[in-house]
Amino acid sequence: MRTFNLSDYLLQYLDKTSDTPRNRQLYRLMRQAILDRVLPPDTRLPSSRDLANELQISRNTVLYAYEQLLAEGYVEARAGSGTYVADTVPDTVFMPPTPRGSNAAVSDWAQLSQRGHRLVAHAGASPQQWGAFVPGVPDVTRFPHKIWSSLQSKIWRNPAVATLTYGGGGGYQPLREVVAEYLKGSRSVDCEAGQVVITNGIHQSIDLCLRLLSDPGDVAWVEDPCYWGARNLLTASGITIRPIRVDPEGICPDHADLAVVPRFIFVTPSHQYPLGMVMSLARRRSLLEYAKTHGCWIIEDDYDSEFRYNGRPLASLQGMDSDERVLYMGTFSKTMFPGLRLGYLVLPPSLKQPFVTGMEELHRSGQAPLQATMAEFMIQGHFSSHIRKMRLLYGARLEILQQEIARHFADDVQVVGTDAGLHLALRLPEKCDDQLIAGQAREQGVIVRPLSSYYHVPDSRNAGLVLGYACVNDANIAPAFDVLARIIRRHL
Amino acid sequence: MRTFNLSDYLLQYLDKTSDTPRNRQLYRLMRQAILDRVLPPDTRLPSSRDLANELQISRNTVLYAYEQLLAEGYVEARAGSGTYVADTVPDTVFMPPTPRGSNAAVSDWAQLSQRGHRLVAHAGASPQQWGAFVPGVPDVTRFPHKIWSSLQSKIWRNPAVATLTYGGGGGYQPLREVVAEYLKGSRSVDCEAGQVVITNGIHQSIDLCLRLLSDPGDVAWVEDPCYWGARNLLTASGITIRPIRVDPEGICPDHADLAVVPRFIFVTPSHQYPLGMVMSLARRRSLLEYAKTHGCWIIEDDYDSEFRYNGRPLASLQGMDSDERVLYMGTFSKTMFPGLRLGYLVLPPSLKQPFVTGMEELHRSGQAPLQATMAEFMIQGHFSSHIRKMRLLYGARLEILQQEIARHFADDVQVVGTDAGLHLALRLPEKCDDQLIAGQAREQGVIVRPLSSYYHVPDSRNAGLVLGYACVNDANIAPAFDVLARIIRRHL
Repeated sequence: MRTFNLSDYLLQYLDKTSDTPRNRQLYRLMRQAILDRVLPPDTRLPSSRDLANELQISRNTVLYAYEQLLAEGYVEARAGSGTYVADTVPDTVFMPPTPRGSNAAVSDWAQLSQRGHRLVAHAGASPQQWGAFVPGVPDVTRFPHKIWSSLQSKIWRNPAVATLTYGGGGGYQPLREVVAEYLKGSRSVDCEAGQVVITNGIHQSIDLCLRLLSDPGDVAWVEDPCYWGARNLLTASGITIRPIRVDPEGICPDHADLAVVPRFIFVTPSHQYPLGMVMSLARRRSLLEYAKTHGCWIIEDDYDSEFRYNGRPLASLQGMDSDERVLYMGTFSKTMFPGLRLGYLVLPPSLKQPFVTGMEELHRSGQAPLQATMAEFMIQGHFSSHIRKMRLLYGARLEILQQEIARHFADDVQVVGTDAGLHLALRLPEKCDDQLIAGQAREQGVIVRPLSSYYHVPDSRNAGLVLGYACVNDANIAPAFDVLARIIRRHL
Repeated sequence: MRTFNLSDYLLQYLDKTSDTPRNRQLYRLMRQAILDRVLPPDTRLPSSRDLANELQISRNTVLYAYEQLLAEGYVEARAGSGTYVADTVPDTVFMPPTPRGSNAAVSDWAQLSQRGHRLVAHAGASPQQWGAFVPGVPDVTRFPHKIWSSLQSKIWRNPAVATLTYGGGGGYQPLREVVAEYLKGSRSVDCEAGQVVITNGIHQSIDLCLRLLSDPGDVAWVEDPCYWGARNLLTASGITIRPIRVDPEGICPDHADLAVVPRFIFVTPSHQYPLGMVMSLARRRSLLEYAKTHGCWIIEDDYDSEFRYNGRPLASLQGMDSDERVLYMGTFSKTMFPGLRLGYLVLPPSLKQPFVTGMEELHRSGQAPLQATMAEFMIQGHFSSHIRKMRLLYGARLEILQQEIARHFADDVQVVGTDAGLHLALRLPEKCDDQLIAGQAREQGVIVRPLSSYYHVPDSRNAGLVLGYACVNDANIAPAFDVLARIIRRHL
């Protein structure tokens, strides 16, 4: 059982396209699994021969990794009975002495600290950020760049001193104000400008929450499946993740979960990522009540709910919260363009001052010309107008994609998450290896993310593919899906 | 002795202009001092009456703070002998239960985690970032904003898809290339573009180093005095700071220091901050040798060495390093304008890949249009030309300021750090209270930073003032210094 999970885990993360030799990758993944206690002390490792077979790699590759782990004390050999995870794992990453006076390649990662290693070990960002079917990327070719550029030029014609020197940690005041107005009106967020902190996106917003409100060892509930970025940031900050399953009403903690009071509850109530359901009103009420009773912080990630094609969006969870437990975050990456690097965090009143200070200490503040341009873009109505246009565009693309899916497949794949956003998910039969399908698709130029990779523990019951349809031209959807469908068909 | 330091420490940080009541401030400062072991276990606290006298605040204010610390276990009362720092200090910050169903103001800071508290407790950024004599701010009114704006418009005329979607963690490739060229040519930095990571400034560069290369409890050597921002970021990341005195040749570790091998050595070799000396060649060699022998990382902060008025700058420390121990960082805040939020970090080859990945995971990447504008500004020669012009301008202002100082004072103040940069330091006689002088100057609209506040432990032997002269018009220097001189005179 343990053995089976290990090879599953390794298969998920071994990257055949990486420049890093396979044996180093294997060593690092296993070391991380041991440090993260995914592989607890006294776990018996499979024999090098068995693991090599399961991973379909050479036995020497496995032996190298085992020997390295042995040398560094992560595992121990017990006479006549095999290799076991050591009882006392070194609690800082062993740093081999640099050979004196030599520039000989020291392994890149071996020099990192433990938290540094956690930050980069499961890096999730894809090198490809455009084309069929990259999830989460809007059609940046439709961005009204002429309007943007002319607003920007106007701001630069006679820039005030205050916009060029260091700014305040909350961001450019007029942008905070218009963001507050926008969120009140369109998302029923209950806030005023002073509660808004402008960040460079969801990652920075999450990181700020972790830096200010948590200490290593704190527990966070995260939806299972969830956004890889949130999971990685939590792990990097030393937070213990408790994955909570989702049902059609959203996050669904069981009795055992409820007993482990978390510091944070990370949720995507408007549009579960990546499955797409909306959290029910009943579930929202329970969650707020629980957070109030136990003093948890709810982090509401409202990353793409502007694009809704069916039904009316529920108001934000933040708008229902009367106890200052919800921190609400959003991004301009989907509504504008990702390279903009602007997002916003709405804080309970009692947290606004420390967060403004925290931003200032971590990053110093500024970028007023950029933020002023964004404010003008919103004030003049270009933002709402662009969203309306893109909603029609993406809605049409979604329809084409759904037709293609229906044309190729009957009941053997299930489509979920088509009410909103920039992506949908295809659920595949249990026997399908979604990692393998995604790899084969990539070789033919079609980018999809395996659904199982969004889960805490990859499991074949969660096989599927996440497809973004926003950054594919209408005309390219059918041909690209043809390629993908042929590959999927081979695995059904 | 201990008692004397405590009240000194408290006087430094108690903020009379803050909205936070004095008793809460006192409680937080003492708690932080205990958590940071500035006040180690078993230290006897002064009586509430004595402390109130020393701080010139009411005894009730002190009693409130003591009672709060007692209730939370930070201090303990010993019968008949006074109040002592507790043996076992709670290792997470005590969080009082939120009153049920009430929005009653919970103290802003009481909700923060321990590391969050460390991040904001000693926040150093000044609310005023312009005028006589704000240190570290260039004259942004002289920035050639028309050239900038026209370059920017050109880039926005037909933006490539790759510049609008998510980018790579290292930054926009052409900017990495031109920064590498610039640093090779002007600072003798030994690097190629792949080693350059574009960040949003020195703070983010430092934070990235701490996240990737350190774990809580690691030791860092910092110069004493040093930049408040570096010190605060280190503390917030759980690093133990070991302040190292500086002499005219720069950082000067003694035998006891050398025995505590640090993870990091933070230095400003080209222009010690804030005292202004250049690290000698001999000291550089020793430092590199020590780092090589013990596997330490040297963080070289080269924040303003472009502005040198006397003598030729020494090459960067990085350029002398043949063992990949130096991480070099710089910023465009001084050479361009602070609100730009662009800086750069040059990594040893063995660290470049993890740092690129780390940036991507922490912040996702983008901002290509901004970085492309910066690259064009450099490629077309505007950057070098702007620096040349500003060097003349600031050199002239420095001269005016030095004349004013000489006109007002003879041997009773000593001027240091006039060879380079955007600021100088006035050393005052030991009896002067530089905090008080700075406060009185602020009331009259003149901003100076007390020199003692740059030291790890404020000490009247380090009384002085740090004056920036770059963001004051020539004509305003004399009148502003008149105001300051009158105040100083009262304290001599």
